Amino acid sequence: MGLGIGKIIVIFLFSFLIIRVGKSVIRNLFKRRRRGPFQITPRRETTLIKLLENTLTYTVYFAAVIMMLETINIQVGALLAGAGIAGLAIGFGAQNLVKDIITGFFIIFEDQFSVGDYIKTANFEGFVEEIGLRTTKIKSWTGLLHIIPNGSINEVTNYSIHNSVAIVDISVAYEGDIATAEQTIEELLKELPERYEELVGVPELLGVQNLGSSDVVLRVVAEVIPMEHWSMARKIRKELKNRLDERGIEIPFPRLVMYSRQEEETLEIENK
Amino acid sequence: MGLGIGKIIVIFLFSFLIIRVGKSVIRNLFKRRRRGPFQITPRRETTLIKLLENTLTYTVYFAAVIMMLETINIQVGALLAGAGIAGLAIGFGAQNLVKDIITGFFIIFEDQFSVGDYIKTANFEGFVEEIGLRTTKIKSWTGLLHIIPNGSINEVTNYSIHNSVAIVDISVAYEGDIATAEQTIEELLKELPERYEELVGVPELLGVQNLGSSDVVLRVVAEVIPMEHWSMARKIRKELKNRLDERGIEIPFPRLVMYSRQEEETLEIENK
Amino acid sequence: MGLGIGKIIVIFLFSFLIIRVGKSVIRNLFKRRRRGPFQITPRRETTLIKLLENTLTYTVYFAAVIMMLETINIQVGALLAGAGIAGLAIGFGAQNLVKDIITGFFIIFEDQFSVGDYIKTANFEGFVEEIGLRTTKIKSWTGLLHIIPNGSINEVTNYSIHNSVAIVDISVAYEGDIATAEQTIEELLKELPERYEELVGVPELLGVQNLGSSDVVLRVVAEVIPMEHWSMARKIRKELKNRLDERGIEIPFPRLVMYSRQEEETLEIENK
Amino acid sequence: MGLGIGKIIVIFLFSFLIIRVGKSVIRNLFKRRRRGPFQITPRRETTLIKLLENTLTYTVYFAAVIMMLETINIQVGALLAGAGIAGLAIGFGAQNLVKDIITGFFIIFEDQFSVGDYIKTANFEGFVEEIGLRTTKIKSWTGLLHIIPNGSINEVTNYSIHNSVAIVDISVAYEGDIATAEQTIEELLKELPERYEELVGVPELLGVQNLGSSDVVLRVVAEVIPMEHWSMARKIRKELKNRLDERGIEIPFPRLVMYSRQEEETLEIENK
Amino acid sequence: MGLGIGKIIVIFLFSFLIIRVGKSVIRNLFKRRRRGPFQITPRRETTLIKLLENTLTYTVYFAAVIMMLETINIQVGALLAGAGIAGLAIGFGAQNLVKDIITGFFIIFEDQFSVGDYIKTANFEGFVEEIGLRTTKIKSWTGLLHIIPNGSINEVTNYSIHNSVAIVDISVAYEGDIATAEQTIEELLKELPERYEELVGVPELLGVQNLGSSDVVLRVVAEVIPMEHWSMARKIRKELKNRLDERGIEIPFPRLVMYSRQEEETLEIENK
Amino acid sequence: MGLGIGKIIVIFLFSFLIIRVGKSVIRNLFKRRRRGPFQITPRRETTLIKLLENTLTYTVYFAAVIMMLETINIQVGALLAGAGIAGLAIGFGAQNLVKDIITGFFIIFEDQFSVGDYIKTANFEGFVEEIGLRTTKIKSWTGLLHIIPNGSINEVTNYSIHNSVAIVDISVAYEGDIATAEQTIEELLKELPERYEELVGVPELLGVQNLGSSDVVLRVVAEVIPMEHWSMARKIRKELKNRLDERGIEIPFPRLVMYSRQEEETLEIENK
Amino acid sequence: MGLGIGKIIVIFLFSFLIIRVGKSVIRNLFKRRRRGPFQITPRRETTLIKLLENTLTYTVYFAAVIMMLETINIQVGALLAGAGIAGLAIGFGAQNLVKDIITGFFIIFEDQFSVGDYIKTANFEGFVEEIGLRTTKIKSWTGLLHIIPNGSINEVTNYSIHNSVAIVDISVAYEGDIATAEQTIEELLKELPERYEELVGVPELLGVQNLGSSDVVLRVVAEVIPMEHWSMARKIRKELKNRLDERGIEIPFPRLVMYSRQEEETLEIENK
Repeated sequence: MGLGIGKIIVIFLFSFLIIRVGKSVIRNLFKRRRRGPFQITPRRETTLIKLLENTLTYTVYFAAVIMMLETINIQVGALLAGAGIAGLAIGFGAQNLVKDIITGFFIIFEDQFSVGDYIKTANFEGFVEEIGLRTTKIKSWTGLLHIIPNGSINEVTNYSIHNSVAIVDISVAYEGDIATAEQTIEELLKELPERYEELVGVPELLGVQNLGSSDVVLRVVAEVIPMEHWSMARKIRKELKNRLDERGIEIPFPRLVMYSRQEEETLEIENK
Repeated sequence: MGLGIGKIIVIFLFSFLIIRVGKSVIRNLFKRRRRGPFQITPRRETTLIKLLENTLTYTVYFAAVIMMLETINIQVGALLAGAGIAGLAIGFGAQNLVKDIITGFFIIFEDQFSVGDYIKTANFEGFVEEIGLRTTKIKSWTGLLHIIPNGSINEVTNYSIHNSVAIVDISVAYEGDIATAEQTIEELLKELPERYEELVGVPELLGVQNLGSSDVVLRVVAEVIPMEHWSMARKIRKELKNRLDERGIEIPFPRLVMYSRQEEETLEIENK
Repeated sequence: MGLGIGKIIVIFLFSFLIIRVGKSVIRNLFKRRRRGPFQITPRRETTLIKLLENTLTYTVYFAAVIMMLETINIQVGALLAGAGIAGLAIGFGAQNLVKDIITGFFIIFEDQFSVGDYIKTANFEGFVEEIGLRTTKIKSWTGLLHIIPNGSINEVTNYSIHNSVAIVDISVAYEGDIATAEQTIEELLKELPERYEELVGVPELLGVQNLGSSDVVLRVVAEVIPMEHWSMARKIRKELKNRLDERGIEIPFPRLVMYSRQEEETLEIENK
Repeated sequence: MGLGIGKIIVIFLFSFLIIRVGKSVIRNLFKRRRRGPFQITPRRETTLIKLLENTLTYTVYFAAVIMMLETINIQVGALLAGAGIAGLAIGFGAQNLVKDIITGFFIIFEDQFSVGDYIKTANFEGFVEEIGLRTTKIKSWTGLLHIIPNGSINEVTNYSIHNSVAIVDISVAYEGDIATAEQTIEELLKELPERYEELVGVPELLGVQNLGSSDVVLRVVAEVIPMEHWSMARKIRKELKNRLDERGIEIPFPRLVMYSRQEEETLEIENK
Repeated sequence: MGLGIGKIIVIFLFSFLIIRVGKSVIRNLFKRRRRGPFQITPRRETTLIKLLENTLTYTVYFAAVIMMLETINIQVGALLAGAGIAGLAIGFGAQNLVKDIITGFFIIFEDQFSVGDYIKTANFEGFVEEIGLRTTKIKSWTGLLHIIPNGSINEVTNYSIHNSVAIVDISVAYEGDIATAEQTIEELLKELPERYEELVGVPELLGVQNLGSSDVVLRVVAEVIPMEHWSMARKIRKELKNRLDERGIEIPFPRLVMYSRQEEETLEIENK
Repeated sequence: MGLGIGKIIVIFLFSFLIIRVGKSVIRNLFKRRRRGPFQITPRRETTLIKLLENTLTYTVYFAAVIMMLETINIQVGALLAGAGIAGLAIGFGAQNLVKDIITGFFIIFEDQFSVGDYIKTANFEGFVEEIGLRTTKIKSWTGLLHIIPNGSINEVTNYSIHNSVAIVDISVAYEGDIATAEQTIEELLKELPERYEELVGVPELLGVQNLGSSDVVLRVVAEVIPMEHWSMARKIRKELKNRLDERGIEIPFPRLVMYSRQEEETLEIENK
Repeated sequence: MGLGIGKIIVIFLFSFLIIRVGKSVIRNLFKRRRRGPFQITPRRETTLIKLLENTLTYTVYFAAVIMMLETINIQVGALLAGAGIAGLAIGFGAQNLVKDIITGFFIIFEDQFSVGDYIKTANFEGFVEEIGLRTTKIKSWTGLLHIIPNGSINEVTNYSIHNSVAIVDISVAYEGDIATAEQTIEELLKELPERYEELVGVPELLGVQNLGSSDVVLRVVAEVIPMEHWSMARKIRKELKNRLDERGIEIPFPRLVMYSRQEEETLEIENK
């Protein structure tokens, strides 16, 4: 048994060694190729390195565990091939693991998102901190770290690829002149690109989005560079509020028309 | 082992080559056929090219991976045919992959939507940016890129095939004359097709959609060319608001009838 | 290999031919039978033609694909019979496809709905545009085209078979005389069938549906020919509003009884 | 092949014949038995006839299809026994079909509901129009026809077996005398059974259901013959409203106690 | 074939006979045992009789059906043992049936509820009308009959075993003296057990449940005999309302503090 | 057959005997061990006794049923080993049963909760009344008895292990001095531990939880012995209300700033 | 049989011994290694120790149970390998157990969270109290102990790794000068880091988050050390309220513009 433990330690150290050496070989290979004639984008390259490293690590660990188990006389091969009760239970229990790895492979292979992108999955959103074959780590802007098995990343939304759009809804009073309000807003919008360089083109006044119960809602949209839409929306809101104040255009409070009625009326009915 | 790595690299380069050549062959074939006697629509043609290219790429990659694995002495064939624990786990884990490809095949084959269409799936909507055998990419109008495995595109809604319909609800006061309001609105609607060419026919005033607590809601619908309904609804809202203002027809604020009652009444009860 | 490609093209063209010829044979067969002694309804006939055509198309395509694959030496038969990992994954992945076709078969066979009907499934409603063995296309009244795999059409509601019912709720004031209001409404309802021919019988005043916080709600229902209920409800709403205005019966605004209390009272408590 | 088509037509006509004859035999058998010594209720009898007819039709059709397929040389038996990929997919895809028939059998066998009953399933409610081995058709009171596979009818609620209960909640003012209100209501309830014969016994005043923010809610319940509860609730509501009006008992509007406070107070704080 | 039909009828009549005789044997056996030395509770006895009868009926019917099918030459045994496509589909389709019977067995065996108990399942609640091996029938207090397959009765709540608790929340005004209110309520609660015999002990005033925006909410709870909590809550509500009225303790309406502000203020800003 | 019935009765009585004897043996074994050198906590002991008793009962019943069935010539062993259609259906149908027992075993083995604890599962909460291998019984404080199969107790929350925390939110007016309010509250909190011994340490004033539209919300938390948080929260609420009243600190009603505007303004627009 | 019981007790004691000895060996091994050349972080070390101890315990218990069962002549090996009905049921029933252990292994192996971290799973959040191979225990801040099987910890959020962010929204009046308000707030924010050391850098005023119906909402965010965001948000709220009060900047109550209208107007319509 002492021999067995010795063997296990040797396997353990050896697998560590292989992973270290393998990783540096992979990195060197890619460095060299960069000087060669066969060119790919750096983003694609990071993806490939990560994919190879991950595959290496998991494969070596998996092989090591099997060798260790065989050292202590457990026939893993036979066990994996058999299909009795235990096999059924393990097969079903492990399907999520397999699903995670398959999905993880496709996330890396198809370059769906990369570290630093702002993405949204079914339940979480945030900046990608780490992509692995089995799990992905996302950091929300409030500092939370979400650890998500890749199998749960079914449909994914990437915010960092196209320009974002900031949306601002602004209310003006029914009594006010809408044409004047629109003109004032459009004047302002034309001035904005000079002041804010994250803007892509002049923001647009879409028109009357809603005829609310107390106000007419106008919608402004602005194309901005990726992920600047929240910040830009705040700035546009402030600029609009100030400009409309200057021009004396009222942003309306809720309104109510009240009819005061005499009590007698009802009392009569009550006394009928 | 050096031989093995050499062989893998050769397989890798070779498969790249086949895909490149295969794709250009497919494109040429279709170009030539266009001059021939056998005609199909250009949209259908793009679909077929995409389908063939996709099939080619996936088949070649799949074959290459199997050949590489066999190079390093893993009997993939035997592994795939066996049905032990591992097989069970992998079979279950991979079913989503198979489902994605089957659904993807039917999306392309049945031409459910094509690049540029505005579609809506269970969770997302936007313009189709890319259709593949495994995933579809949709870009929302706010710039988000949704990456959806085809297996999740179960029921799909296509906005770009038929004309869209803009819907505008407008409130008029209970005290007002509804007949006059209807007449004013219908006059306006008749003028609209001249001014807006995205309109298909004259918009229609459907009638009294709702008798609300403070207002009578009239509904206007307008058939427009695909995807212009949001923009047209905004324009109709503005036109209606202006016209009703001109004619002095009130768009009502919420109303309340208030009975002021003396406190004594209750105090008496309290003092009983 | 050239031979293989030639063979594939021949199979491709041949299957096209068979489908065309087969479809015309089916149509002719039914035309002839119409003159014969064995009668069925035209709706049933369309159903049977569609069913036969669909079966023909899918069967021929399926056979063609298998023949093509065998041409390039893939033993589909053996593959389909084997039950290794790949088989498991494919079997599970394809179950939706099989479910779609089985459900599609029963939709056509049992004549659950036909082209032109207005139906509602779990998620969508609209006019049926096309029924196939695998998918059904529904067009909503706003112009959206929903493409639904038949397997998702589990429970279906058909609006086009029985007469529809328009429902109108109308509020009258608590202070008003309900008997008078009911009488006025019933008078009006009796006049309606003359004016609107989509009505089936005289609409009915069901009675006091709700004693709300500010109003007494009366409910009117009208049986109309299929799918005219939305339009008829709007017309009845307008007629009711006009008639009640004429008779001076008030449709009430929200009411509130307000007790103004002196501040001192509370201040005393606060100063205790 | 001509022979094959001939054979198929013969099978087709023959199966039609068997079903027709079989159905009339079943009906005659039951008619005769009615005169015999062995008695069952008519409802149970309809159920048994339907069950036998349904079983006959499905069995004959199923046998016919298998015979037709064997005519064109497809070994259905072998196919059904094999368990390759296709078998897996078909087996899973068809499980819903089997589930529908099993549930359908128990619905008919256990007599859960019969044609004409008002039932409610998970998603729909209405009058049963047709019960089959695979699907049930329900017609809602608004004229919609719901077609539901029996497998979806898991838990079912039958409204037509026991008497229904109409529930009416009525608000009285806090300032009013509850004892008087209760007495007035109970007087009325005692008069109702004479006027409305769908009532089973005297309706009951349960008591103070809720102490709301502006009103005391009293609850009245009335046992009626099946399915008359909606109609009876409307009648009781009207009777109650009229009687309370007569006796001068107020049905209260929402109330609010308002304290008017001077602005200075806050301004002082603001200027601190 | 005539012989076959004869045989089927004989089997049919015979199975009827066995069930009748078997049931009376079971009942007699239990009657006799009651006089014997081996005692069990009557509720437990009903359970055992029901369980045995149910098992008998289902077993005899099942045997009869198999014998009938074998009469017409269908080898049910072989069919049930085979595991082809059909087997797969049937096996999956029938799993709900098996689940229903297993759950039903445990409901009866563990005596989870018995006829007459008021229970609540996931979707329904009501008085148990009938418990079977496959389905349970529940009658709601509004007269609806819910038919629930036992497999759907996963988690069940039984109201009829322990005493129920009536909960009454009562609002008193912020300006009022809470100590006085509490004292008044406790006085009343002490008097209640004399008047209402369904009460178990003196109801308890728990204390200040909530400091609402316009009122202080006090909570009263009363232990009552099973299922009398709804009725008792109504009685306590009325008693509390009357007693508080007598002592002049106000049940408060919603309150609002209003600051009237001059319009100029805002207009100045607008004119800036 | 008479012999069979005799044998069944013998088995039945014998299994009863074994269970009775077995249980008393288990209890004695544990009693003796308590005097021995090998010590465990009493709670752990109850757990082990329950686990052993449960296992004994189920094992004996299971063996008895199999012996009975074999008496009447049903080969249970062969039946359980076979895997035809029936096997499939039963296997699937029985998986919940197995899941219940496995989860039940771990609940007892890991001592997740014991009789008397207040726990919360996905759908229910209450005091644990009984834990078995298959089901757990929970009694809510309103007297309902929830019977839950252990397989449904996935995630469980135990309230009885750590101290509970009572949370009280109290509103003070915007116009008031928050520092004074905080000082008053903290004074009170320091006095509380003397008066209420269920308190663990001095309750804490966390600070400004929310700046509401009409009030500033302060939050107080108090650590108490397990399950006393609801009762203590009520007491703290009352103490706070009284103390703030004494010091003249207002608990504010909802506020509203009202601008009265002349009607002409709008009328002018309407007459434009 | 006495021999059997003796053997079982020996196995029982022996397994206890092995676990005790094994655990101390593991701890010693790690202590020694700490002095050696091969360094790892202490957090990682705790993880490895826990993983090894857990594996040891479960393996020994599992082996002991099998040996005990074999002592009483149950062939566990054969039982586990067989795949009849029982096997199917057990295999399905046990899959959750396997899933729990696999997930638990990865939680420990990948160091997703450790004891003392504040984490959030799908349904619960709190401080981790214990991590095991099968379950994780989380203690909420209100003292509840959540016991969660690891298989239910799919996606996990860890709050304790990155700095947290406190978010405070503050309303200012529309009539007020926003520039002044912003300046006042920013002055305050600059002073805060001196007073509160849990702050990481100066809190930031993001800008106008929302133009509400009665107020302009400004948002302040502050990066703080992990888990101090709730406490810091409360402090910032209080500081902001005090500073704005000092400067006389109003935090606005809800506003309403009221038009008082004469009743005649409507009465005229009513009398039309």
